[in-house]
Amino acid sequence: MSIETVDSWVSHGGRQGVYRHKSEATGTEMTFSVFVPPHLEGTQLPVLWYLSGLTCTHANVTEKGEYRAACAEHGIIFVAPDTSPRGEGVPDDSAGHWDFGLGAGFYVDATQKPYAANYRMWSYISEELPKIIAECFPADMSRQAISGHSMGGHGALVAGLREPGRYRSVSAFSPIVHPSSVPWGKKAFELYLGEERKDWRAYDAVQLIEDGHKRKELLVDVGTEDPFLHEQLCPEALEAACGGAGIGLTLRRQSGYDHSYYFVSTFLADHVAWHAARLKGD
Amino acid sequence: MSIETVDSWVSHGGRQGVYRHKSEATGTEMTFSVFVPPHLEGTQLPVLWYLSGLTCTHANVTEKGEYRAACAEHGIIFVAPDTSPRGEGVPDDSAGHWDFGLGAGFYVDATQKPYAANYRMWSYISEELPKIIAECFPADMSRQAISGHSMGGHGALVAGLREPGRYRSVSAFSPIVHPSSVPWGKKAFELYLGEERKDWRAYDAVQLIEDGHKRKELLVDVGTEDPFLHEQLCPEALEAACGGAGIGLTLRRQSGYDHSYYFVSTFLADHVAWHAARLKGD
Repeated sequence: MSIETVDSWVSHGGRQGVYRHKSEATGTEMTFSVFVPPHLEGTQLPVLWYLSGLTCTHANVTEKGEYRAACAEHGIIFVAPDTSPRGEGVPDDSAGHWDFGLGAGFYVDATQKPYAANYRMWSYISEELPKIIAECFPADMSRQAISGHSMGGHGALVAGLREPGRYRSVSAFSPIVHPSSVPWGKKAFELYLGEERKDWRAYDAVQLIEDGHKRKELLVDVGTEDPFLHEQLCPEALEAACGGAGIGLTLRRQSGYDHSYYFVSTFLADHVAWHAARLKGD
Repeated sequence: MSIETVDSWVSHGGRQGVYRHKSEATGTEMTFSVFVPPHLEGTQLPVLWYLSGLTCTHANVTEKGEYRAACAEHGIIFVAPDTSPRGEGVPDDSAGHWDFGLGAGFYVDATQKPYAANYRMWSYISEELPKIIAECFPADMSRQAISGHSMGGHGALVAGLREPGRYRSVSAFSPIVHPSSVPWGKKAFELYLGEERKDWRAYDAVQLIEDGHKRKELLVDVGTEDPFLHEQLCPEALEAACGGAGIGLTLRRQSGYDHSYYFVSTFLADHVAWHAARLKGD
């Protein structure tokens, strides 16, 4: 297992890096970013995963997320993976649309041709990349949390519900909470996972809750002026599912905010602090 | 005087906008960004100007500067102009280099052909744009401060030294403190201002100080790993000039930092707070 440093900067007293490696999961090179806050040599720090949304790479949150000050304050490593495999031979949306294919892996392991060979983002973020983080960074893998934005909010909710023991806390910005029922999700799941609806349930936060997956609590921020709120995000579906399952959902409808990083960056430091409180202790 | 709203987002409780207008100074359309923090209707807020560096537009600091949280906390309007005129017919570097022409206006009023017609960034930032800010935003123009990065740090120091009454406080990141003596500055000044060295002095912070321009204090941050530190920035020249003139220069050599926005964003909130303390009161 080896990684290449693509870029590296001192920032907020720590180090923001961008790294590249050959992924077995996706069969491609994958790029991700990691911020390691200032820390005493030899200490291990908790890890906050951040999964990005449609069209993004690691770079969007790395440049625009405004998380480093908070991660430095709370002593948290911040990991931002890419959103899909990329490179020659990786199949994209056949019509070139931005909501499927490159930049739109939806954090699933695809089972359908021609996507199954490379689009294995679930294995990548839940198995392969955690091993790399554990090996190459001063990470305490017994203390992990996860967040994400839009498609990445979907990924964070799914990961947190499927692996409650791995992630101590889960939050999301503008998540696609019930992809099986909205246009972005239906298109992606049909092409990645096939037409059998039952195969979609393992990647749908609302259905995972309906199927008995639980957490004590979730933190979700959405903007009231998000243009995707009613057609794609549908936070009320998560509200209903959590209500039925006794999951303590804090759903904050942030007045006036949209879907952009001007929204995410406003509240990401707050999410970091929220996760930090839950990552404290052994 | 009319401006067009190009983009606008709610962020950190305020509004980040991008605006466009026809500039009389440059004879072109000009784009700038303004963050107005949350405030009570009818109140007027102090203004912090931020001048950007070579190759930048308003967008770099707007996306990567991490200033909005601090401006919201301290109640400060943040204005980020472009770095040069742009558009059809605006002459660029004849060889296409990035250190002159588009993105490299150096905040001077050019006197030489073919640049004199459009490259009037001094008039733009010191006369035309302040009138627009006063008219279109809830700005208290009796309370202004200025900062900037690299070429924009040069611009901020020059503006602050030439107009001590206009700007209550002046800071800079990685400024070009003595452009007349370094490659970037010499190239720009020769082409914009001509070969007469005496005509350059009004745009050279070190020479302005030598010529008797004064301020009580200046705040400057530079990164020790900035690749331009020794050839282009030369902060020791500012140190010597301020020492000779009794100007209280706080020059912080920030260990390990480079020239990027990973550096600027680390300390920009701190600069905002420093300016805020000096912008308080009537």
